[in-house]
Amino acid sequence: MGRHELEYPKDATNTVKRHDERGIYALRTIHELINASLILHISFNTEGSPFPTTLPMLGQMGSFARPSSSTGDPLDLYVHGYVSSRLMSLGRKHSDQDGQKTETGLPVCVAASHVDGLVLALSSFSHSYNYRSAILFGYATLVTDVEEKNYALEQITNGIVHDRWSHTRLPLTNAELQSTSVLRIRIVSGSAKIRTGNAKDDRDDLQNDELRDGNWTGVLPVYSSIGTPVDSDYNKVEVPAHVSEFIEEFNRESREYCVEAIKKK
Amino acid sequence: MGRHELEYPKDATNTVKRHDERGIYALRTIHELINASLILHISFNTEGSPFPTTLPMLGQMGSFARPSSSTGDPLDLYVHGYVSSRLMSLGRKHSDQDGQKTETGLPVCVAASHVDGLVLALSSFSHSYNYRSAILFGYATLVTDVEEKNYALEQITNGIVHDRWSHTRLPLTNAELQSTSVLRIRIVSGSAKIRTGNAKDDRDDLQNDELRDGNWTGVLPVYSSIGTPVDSDYNKVEVPAHVSEFIEEFNRESREYCVEAIKKK
Repeated sequence: MGRHELEYPKDATNTVKRHDERGIYALRTIHELINASLILHISFNTEGSPFPTTLPMLGQMGSFARPSSSTGDPLDLYVHGYVSSRLMSLGRKHSDQDGQKTETGLPVCVAASHVDGLVLALSSFSHSYNYRSAILFGYATLVTDVEEKNYALEQITNGIVHDRWSHTRLPLTNAELQSTSVLRIRIVSGSAKIRTGNAKDDRDDLQNDELRDGNWTGVLPVYSSIGTPVDSDYNKVEVPAHVSEFIEEFNRESREYCVEAIKKK
Repeated sequence: MGRHELEYPKDATNTVKRHDERGIYALRTIHELINASLILHISFNTEGSPFPTTLPMLGQMGSFARPSSSTGDPLDLYVHGYVSSRLMSLGRKHSDQDGQKTETGLPVCVAASHVDGLVLALSSFSHSYNYRSAILFGYATLVTDVEEKNYALEQITNGIVHDRWSHTRLPLTNAELQSTSVLRIRIVSGSAKIRTGNAKDDRDDLQNDELRDGNWTGVLPVYSSIGTPVDSDYNKVEVPAHVSEFIEEFNRESREYCVEAIKKK
């Protein structure tokens, strides 16, 4: 962590209380966990329902005003969805109230979680996971500027498979742009929580020879993999370099992280 | 799907609107997606904050009243956590108001999502994921009965690694039971959404020979794996059968599903 890493301020909403030594507030760590997640869970409230709604979505951190920003800088989160979906409709409603533009936005919570290992201990109580999880709080408004919308869609597309955007038919048609909505989430707070290491047990259990002689303890590393690409029935070409390199990098990083994490304290 | 499969009734909260052909309401499908998920995302509101809070947690469907229930039956969701965590405190508050027991509970939304493939198409607009996602809405109350608490913790422990519970030190100590809280979520509604198949593109793009001659289309299958177990520094025994069998089954099912999903319509 560099000397000048920005952090989200701690408040009642984002402060990690249980196992506070696992809490992280650095923008860079949180934003990179969000970007590396294939799925984000976005929660919001709807009028008249006591329940929040949680949807799985794709998103990437970015700054349209300063596209060269690094992941450690203050950034917005861009998510995209079908134009008439409930979240997009709510985002629109919160962007333009009574004909007046507002920057208030729809309050949302965004979560990204990676499971890195199953930690098996002597007691069920000491069982755990190695994991990396991040949470962001912010206000979602609808992106109406066409350039910003294209910027966001490019970030999201390349955020999954690096360099994919330039390997698709461009530009997007008007019909495509009109049936896709993009929300910009202005982040106000966030935190991350990371568990690494191997199994830990209480002293009483560690001193119980019968228990230790009969029960295995350790970590089962968990990682995501991408398998052999399957051509569509209308595909005419070989798997290109930007895809095979992405697969190779994804698989290597994913396998390496979960094993390295076990060695860390 | 059998003739007598129970379904959650459709209402404003749970009905799948976009790509409604992907919507599923069968209890069995939804409960099995929840049970097969290593992580659930649970969302709830806190007084005084405009934001819902979303936490990654572990949970399993179950019925303490009728433990022999199948996954297609009406079930509760059990989740566990540290006794003084915010969610558990809220659950407690909603279980016992003004000294009166209440079954109202804290309104929560639970999401489970599996990414099965990255679908790469000719246009960025037609890019997609193969996925299975489930959502449940319900009311969370604190489990106070010690037998029910033990039942729930056994379900959760065995829900991750089959048969793990009987390979741990039992029973739980009073201190362990007192510092772990369990919430029972009474489910009122739910739905699932599943995408399978290969890439699809618009007719205009399919007829664009230059585009098709230059760009690969297909699916990159995504699956979770468990790697070689890593012993704790105090472990004294070989990896036992219940763990190695779990790893073998987890890896086989995970690899097979994502490939089979591509072949389905």
